[in-house]
Amino acid sequence: VKLSPSFHRRKIAELQRRLAEAALDGLLVFKPPNLYYLFGFFFIPTERTIAGWIPAQGEPALFVPRLEAEHASGVEGLARLEVYFEHLGPPLPADWIAERLRRWGASRARLGYEDGLPSGTLARLQKELPGASWSAEGGRAVADMRRVKEPEELALLRKAGEYADFMVAAAADAVRQGGLPSEIELAQAAHQAVLARMVAELDELVYAGGVSGGLVCAGPRAARPHGLPSAARPRPGDCLVLSFGCSVGGYHAESERTYFVGEPGPQFRAMQAAVLDAQAASLERLAPGQACAEVNAAGLQALRAAGCDDLIRHRIGHGMGLEPHEPPWLEEGDPSLLRPGMVVSVEPGLYLAGQGGCRVSDTVAVTTAGPQLLTSHPRDLAAMILEP
Amino acid sequence: VKLSPSFHRRKIAELQRRLAEAALDGLLVFKPPNLYYLFGFFFIPTERTIAGWIPAQGEPALFVPRLEAEHASGVEGLARLEVYFEHLGPPLPADWIAERLRRWGASRARLGYEDGLPSGTLARLQKELPGASWSAEGGRAVADMRRVKEPEELALLRKAGEYADFMVAAAADAVRQGGLPSEIELAQAAHQAVLARMVAELDELVYAGGVSGGLVCAGPRAARPHGLPSAARPRPGDCLVLSFGCSVGGYHAESERTYFVGEPGPQFRAMQAAVLDAQAASLERLAPGQACAEVNAAGLQALRAAGCDDLIRHRIGHGMGLEPHEPPWLEEGDPSLLRPGMVVSVEPGLYLAGQGGCRVSDTVAVTTAGPQLLTSHPRDLAAMILEP
Repeated sequence: VKLSPSFHRRKIAELQRRLAEAALDGLLVFKPPNLYYLFGFFFIPTERTIAGWIPAQGEPALFVPRLEAEHASGVEGLARLEVYFEHLGPPLPADWIAERLRRWGASRARLGYEDGLPSGTLARLQKELPGASWSAEGGRAVADMRRVKEPEELALLRKAGEYADFMVAAAADAVRQGGLPSEIELAQAAHQAVLARMVAELDELVYAGGVSGGLVCAGPRAARPHGLPSAARPRPGDCLVLSFGCSVGGYHAESERTYFVGEPGPQFRAMQAAVLDAQAASLERLAPGQACAEVNAAGLQALRAAGCDDLIRHRIGHGMGLEPHEPPWLEEGDPSLLRPGMVVSVEPGLYLAGQGGCRVSDTVAVTTAGPQLLTSHPRDLAAMILEP
Repeated sequence: VKLSPSFHRRKIAELQRRLAEAALDGLLVFKPPNLYYLFGFFFIPTERTIAGWIPAQGEPALFVPRLEAEHASGVEGLARLEVYFEHLGPPLPADWIAERLRRWGASRARLGYEDGLPSGTLARLQKELPGASWSAEGGRAVADMRRVKEPEELALLRKAGEYADFMVAAAADAVRQGGLPSEIELAQAAHQAVLARMVAELDELVYAGGVSGGLVCAGPRAARPHGLPSAARPRPGDCLVLSFGCSVGGYHAESERTYFVGEPGPQFRAMQAAVLDAQAASLERLAPGQACAEVNAAGLQALRAAGCDDLIRHRIGHGMGLEPHEPPWLEEGDPSLLRPGMVVSVEPGLYLAGQGGCRVSDTVAVTTAGPQLLTSHPRDLAAMILEP
């Protein structure tokens, strides 16, 4: 399971149209997820430069180190593969890429580059191509295209959501089996279970960077939204955040639930209710034409209305796709409007220092028929109580 | 097990001396490993800006999102912690950081920044602090300090090397137990085994980004140096590359061995012998005062002398520490001289398309008394033959 060769061809063609419209002669792409999106080329990122060149007209090219040459030669329909030996050259890969662009007639071209391009790399390219003009604006075309998912991307995300749900269930089951495993053991149990299922069910794993990740934190450790699994064991009375992500064909979904070891007290009952209300309030607004900032405001407002203002530590959500976090952002600073095919997390959370936290996250697609949940593990309080 | 608070204090003081010498007023630090090195602050990197400000004189500051505020407040001796809400603000974190620097009198300062700083962030900072001057050169001070490891860093690296060796042994044992597990299963077996041992032996895991990683590739898949574990099983007659890395207290070591499922044929015997000879040739030159490029040349020359020129796909090695790959680089483009306390991989490899590959990697410290191997799993051909 991965994207089809025709998907990548379509995306290259669409990018070329956008470059022409923006009066750019070509775009240099360095971000690994963008290279996968355009070329279907998935690799382990290291310090070695790997880049793509997409001219507004003509054949795209890939630049790779010798280490990846055989791998890159498997990219379908690639007319130009340029290979250097190692990451410091000589010459330095940025200089070597610039030399090829000169040879291909781009000495005075209008070139786009990505916002995230390291400033040192940009400086070398500018020095080696002094007659070219450089546009960060044009470099945002790929990020913009990636915001809206096509049906084959949504199919991968749906499968990833199914697996993320399965990881939450596997970790909860490990608690139910007794003995209160440590946070690390719970994370491992979920990874083992999903990997076995993926190997059995999928014809190919796109494994770069791992296929699954997880945050498992119990009790006071759950008061930190980005706490990491530790060797500590949950204790009776603890909340237990089970937060798992999974990638299928490179596309990432997440499922997060907050469990309780035994009956929660009144404060955690109230926090859990507030989080579920906030999620419902944001989902209600998750429709084409709504502003991301408004979906965020609705969720945060529900948390405040429940008297939990002091316990808020983060926004309502973020886009998902080839990156676990990507645009659009369900936060105040993103005024962009939702479109059908966008996929976001909806994950209100509340955190009480020294005691714990509650967060519920689902992966949700925006459609004209309303929000479509790609994760659907139970979330009601009654289903969240574990008796180990 | 992690670095001591006094380590971080010393590093901040050393950096301040270097900034003063370079006539800089301060340095902005964005790279996660540099923030850990200077502040002891380890976190899950996301799109949210986390930055440190180290003035040449006076108190350093950390800039974090609300999500990490409680976590960052645990940094010992930190006088200034500045907290923003979310990653797009408003205002944008880069603008908000610039505003604080202005308030702290840095409007016309000479500022250092890191080479890897995204060009978009640098552009915003420059726009918001138009009177400041900006030096990439000065930003290299932290990377330069990190090249040479102190005894407490070496102790962490030694432990990490022990665990990496243990992972190789665990995966080889899983093959010996029979049934020829898949590459993914072998990788998982190694991770499970080392995690259980780390939880039992270490008082604290610095778990950010995972504590262990692995490449497991058999037969034709091993012909790609950066191949990823697949659901395929090694077959009798295959080579089997077991390449594992492990982090202790944030410090990373690697151990890689090439096994054979049954007796290898003459070609793989010759490749394995050439790789071991090349490793010995590079280790012989791994001494203070030697140029990195020369250590690389000695190893590659040994591979060529064995008639394997066509099978070379990469350099001899790379530095290791808070990053799995970091300076110095054992490759042609790094003329820098080795110093006592540097730690590098020495990992010659040979790759035969469609058939397999041989690579042997050890993590090695440079000392005045000769190279000190931090990994020591057996490597002779006789020990590499598995009879499942």
